[in-house]
Amino acid sequence: MSADTSLSQTDRTRLHRLRERGRSDRAELYAVLDAGLICHLGVLIDGSPVVLPTGYGRSGDTLYLHGSSANRSLLAADSRDVCVTVTHLDGMVCARAIFHHSMNYRSAVVFGTARLVADDEERLTALRAVTEQLVPGRWEHSRPPSRKELAATAVLALPLDEASVKVRTGPAKDEPEDYQLDFWAGVIPVAMSFGLPEADAAVRPGLDVPDHISALASRGS
Amino acid sequence: MSADTSLSQTDRTRLHRLRERGRSDRAELYAVLDAGLICHLGVLIDGSPVVLPTGYGRSGDTLYLHGSSANRSLLAADSRDVCVTVTHLDGMVCARAIFHHSMNYRSAVVFGTARLVADDEERLTALRAVTEQLVPGRWEHSRPPSRKELAATAVLALPLDEASVKVRTGPAKDEPEDYQLDFWAGVIPVAMSFGLPEADAAVRPGLDVPDHISALASRGS
Repeated sequence: MSADTSLSQTDRTRLHRLRERGRSDRAELYAVLDAGLICHLGVLIDGSPVVLPTGYGRSGDTLYLHGSSANRSLLAADSRDVCVTVTHLDGMVCARAIFHHSMNYRSAVVFGTARLVADDEERLTALRAVTEQLVPGRWEHSRPPSRKELAATAVLALPLDEASVKVRTGPAKDEPEDYQLDFWAGVIPVAMSFGLPEADAAVRPGLDVPDHISALASRGS
Repeated sequence: MSADTSLSQTDRTRLHRLRERGRSDRAELYAVLDAGLICHLGVLIDGSPVVLPTGYGRSGDTLYLHGSSANRSLLAADSRDVCVTVTHLDGMVCARAIFHHSMNYRSAVVFGTARLVADDEERLTALRAVTEQLVPGRWEHSRPPSRKELAATAVLALPLDEASVKVRTGPAKDEPEDYQLDFWAGVIPVAMSFGLPEADAAVRPGLDVPDHISALASRGS
């Protein structure tokens, strides 16, 4: 079972610095991924790295990204090495010294060979995961994709085999002699927050904001 | 002056789809960059793309990223093609059809050849830009970097010559026949928000939260 619950290190995921920020438990990888809304996909196009924001979802040990089937970057990633990064900024860490300023964060960096999903059943699983990642409960409260819509959607799968997770928490660490300086130091918490839902002007009369939408307001990150 | 204020298109920045989301004004690029807190740097390491979150700042037409001088990814980016992406998630767009779900966002994708900054004066300019990007006013309220600290800091510069800016706003667009469905549709606003500053336990007695810190609470993104 240990291969299932821990993240084995590779040359790409081994931390060379600040090892105390590293996390090696698979559950911590899932926690960082499951708490996110968007990821940044890195893919090589014409020899240069391209970094694009996109939605994603997780189903078991597989990360799914989706986009239009006309999206060149998604298509370019098929059978290629990619990197998908999810970052939560949790706080700005103000130290007495400029040099010791930092950020509190949780990040997951996933490496692997992407696979364009051809099977319709897996594509539906993926779209459900991506939809539910953004708005839990949404899948049951929308019209499912038609065959034509499914064909117009590109889905990329990435196995969660190789990843590094980093977490920084807590206050700043200043030089011993700097604690006597008259500079304020501390952490300013940062979070993603959700505002009040703005109903579409064409929502049918009598349709209240459903529970799965109002539940978001209390979610945050 | 037109070359100064507009973003000329290249093969990498030309939008192939959803052109109505594209922005071609340099001021809009600056607005997206200046409103951000972290970027995602894409760089090629041992043949694979690597995407890392990091702080950044802008000084005129130059984007600066910084990190430890022991940070392999920053060093690997010197004289190499990189991609730096800044993304603001502004809302989750719920449509009646799963297929038409979307996100409101502003993103800037910058391409270019990175340069490791050697000159100490430019490094100070860069560190100031990075610090002020995260906490405006902070540079004047902290101890400046020592010569040794400056040497331990790697600074990467990227010219803002080649970039694409995309913005999506507004409600969902459903298929005409779906407007009669009894599904709620609308936008849930998303923003980065700042919590109350948490002073370091060792802050000297009598040192209140300074104005530049309390001003953050009303900033948001």
